[in-house]
Amino acid sequence: MDDVDSEVAQWRFSASNAVVNAPSTSIRSALHAVMANLDENDERPVALLGFGDPSVFPSFRTTPVAEDAIVSALRSAKFNCYAPAAGIPTARCAIAEYLSGDLPYKLSPDDVFLTSGCTQAIEIVVSVLSQPGANILLPRPGFSLYEEQCASSGLDGRHFNLVPDREWEIDLDMVEALADDNTVAMVVINPCNPCGNVLSYQHLSKVAETAKKLGIMLIADEVYDHLTFGKNPFVRMGAFGQTVPVLTLGSLSKRWLVPGWRLGWIAATDPNGILKNTKIIKCIERRLSMSTVSATFVQGAVPEILKNTKDDFFKKTIETLRKLADLCYTKLQEIDCIECPHKPEGSMFVMVKLDISYLDDIQDDFEFCCKLVKEESVVILPGVAVGMKNWLRITFAIESSTLDDALDRLKSFCKRHQKQTI
Amino acid sequence: MDDVDSEVAQWRFSASNAVVNAPSTSIRSALHAVMANLDENDERPVALLGFGDPSVFPSFRTTPVAEDAIVSALRSAKFNCYAPAAGIPTARCAIAEYLSGDLPYKLSPDDVFLTSGCTQAIEIVVSVLSQPGANILLPRPGFSLYEEQCASSGLDGRHFNLVPDREWEIDLDMVEALADDNTVAMVVINPCNPCGNVLSYQHLSKVAETAKKLGIMLIADEVYDHLTFGKNPFVRMGAFGQTVPVLTLGSLSKRWLVPGWRLGWIAATDPNGILKNTKIIKCIERRLSMSTVSATFVQGAVPEILKNTKDDFFKKTIETLRKLADLCYTKLQEIDCIECPHKPEGSMFVMVKLDISYLDDIQDDFEFCCKLVKEESVVILPGVAVGMKNWLRITFAIESSTLDDALDRLKSFCKRHQKQTI
Repeated sequence: MDDVDSEVAQWRFSASNAVVNAPSTSIRSALHAVMANLDENDERPVALLGFGDPSVFPSFRTTPVAEDAIVSALRSAKFNCYAPAAGIPTARCAIAEYLSGDLPYKLSPDDVFLTSGCTQAIEIVVSVLSQPGANILLPRPGFSLYEEQCASSGLDGRHFNLVPDREWEIDLDMVEALADDNTVAMVVINPCNPCGNVLSYQHLSKVAETAKKLGIMLIADEVYDHLTFGKNPFVRMGAFGQTVPVLTLGSLSKRWLVPGWRLGWIAATDPNGILKNTKIIKCIERRLSMSTVSATFVQGAVPEILKNTKDDFFKKTIETLRKLADLCYTKLQEIDCIECPHKPEGSMFVMVKLDISYLDDIQDDFEFCCKLVKEESVVILPGVAVGMKNWLRITFAIESSTLDDALDRLKSFCKRHQKQTI
Repeated sequence: MDDVDSEVAQWRFSASNAVVNAPSTSIRSALHAVMANLDENDERPVALLGFGDPSVFPSFRTTPVAEDAIVSALRSAKFNCYAPAAGIPTARCAIAEYLSGDLPYKLSPDDVFLTSGCTQAIEIVVSVLSQPGANILLPRPGFSLYEEQCASSGLDGRHFNLVPDREWEIDLDMVEALADDNTVAMVVINPCNPCGNVLSYQHLSKVAETAKKLGIMLIADEVYDHLTFGKNPFVRMGAFGQTVPVLTLGSLSKRWLVPGWRLGWIAATDPNGILKNTKIIKCIERRLSMSTVSATFVQGAVPEILKNTKDDFFKKTIETLRKLADLCYTKLQEIDCIECPHKPEGSMFVMVKLDISYLDDIQDDFEFCCKLVKEESVVILPGVAVGMKNWLRITFAIESSTLDDALDRLKSFCKRHQKQTI
């Protein structure tokens, strides 16, 4: 035994090898691995097209209304205390009203549960659905936190495809083929991270009918709610709550550009009360009673934030995103080895296909991203991190000039690595 | 089948009966059950001696330094973004320095992990230690969240006694008798919730030696750090980190009187790096990478809060608590059926013994608390919620006049229910 081993040997505790040795499948760790290749001698600014967090850029500063609401809640000293497990009543009430604006029925404050960002909403929903033998249907490409939480909770995740040639619609035949008696739910992320598409009313209606037929509930991840700038307006999955029970997940993070504020929610958009009758709601309450949600004064600011934020702020964000999506789409067309099947119409991302056969000395998307960082200081997420090998997820929600420059660098990188025979 | 059943039958998902039907052992649910007996016709204000959250009372308002630091971090717009999984570096650095002030060695920022209050610190530490067959030693009386998290993680909790007649010191013989090859850790809450005692340097030293002998790590819950006003000064368990590895849990919640801000931490107070070598640290990092911690702008305010809070603020809190503890102890002496084995010297609580034999129509502590609420609008936590039947946990950290009045009401309640034969 070496020194470390003999030191360790006298202690009875140890880490679970299953946890420590499990390969991390997270977006965060993929980006970390990619960024390890940064060339420190490259004096150009690093272009971050990998993260879904534009709040660090001046063009994406939140509204003063939201900041003022936080300051006012804090200064009141009314919200230094612990909050109830499900969140403070005024915040639950305001979120119920906010969501009801997009629904054909009215939510009650009791339908809403505050969480520490959408991250905790996902954690809680997955843990509530975990039962021995149960499985859940997840989109591919998707958002890796679902896979991670499923692995941690022992819930079996099965993947259905989003179809690039059908504007990233859900392959509902595949959903039906995957589902069995132990399937409990299906996750729908709309507007879509990572694909940048927005599902139509008609398609969402079919999703609801399919779920009803299968007897499964829907998890509607709407963290990018209302961030749409294409032909399809944003429609809440919960609009089909009469057909199928829906747990709607959301947060202030994206629409208000404040992911660091950690204010999210789970809402039971379920007018028939199926989630109550099956005691799913009680399970959520129990789980929340052992957890800790968002800061109480952030909760205290929610009513003012939701009621007083001006339309101008939202319009400006949408306009900014639309222009960036246009720029991104246009410049990507100029790159031979990259194919963009669908111009982004929502969220902050676009998924593009990498044609490796065009490239000389690059084996896959991960190597592509590592070399791109090394040579051009441009960070892009390899598709493998969202379940699609040899695709790339590109974030266009950054400063326009940086995006423009980064796409030029991407283009010259691709040209430099192009096979000479083509 | 009735209507609900037939509605439910068509759906494949359901809640885990194990979760839904498990009796809730939380302090929160015990207080909820007690408070259900409130008489709405009683026009006197409700006296809340059940919760450990004085921030709602004017005497316990946090320092403007802390509020200003939050506002300044928020207004900078530098902290609207996601934080790294373990917290932002400046906050980790400031907490490492803060804790090092009480330690015979220096912590590095890498030893510190930010959490969403101490609640999440407990959740993460318990989940990291959970392995098939493993057990952990917990204090009785204790803090119910440990029991809840152990039940949820499948970690077997075994209880050692805190001894009222020895100033609530830990029964270390019992600790040795309980431990076996599968014991991984022991929890030490100091200053103590619920007992209000402060462990001496000598006793902590014995705790460390016992843990070393048993080969188990220590979880030092120091959420009430520095809130001491008796003969024993506050000593960190981590001061014995050379003897035994210690995970120190803490937060801004109690010393800064802001439990709603949700800023806590886990610190590896372990100069020999045992927790690193056994990969416990890596496990904590993995667990945090899937979770969400405190709001980034609250993290951003931590350096200023820790460095600039004036001693006067801390002294005022201590002085206030000392006076309240005196008042509480003195008035409790006047009540026949209540025995207070040890005058509180720290935290915000006192544990007192209820002599049921003095009482006429009350069977146990829970009934005592329910009737007390009903007849006197005074809320006290039944000891059963912290593992001690026929004891009571009383919070004295409220407004002085309310405490005075509440103890009068408690006295007259006890007198009214006293057996006539005594």
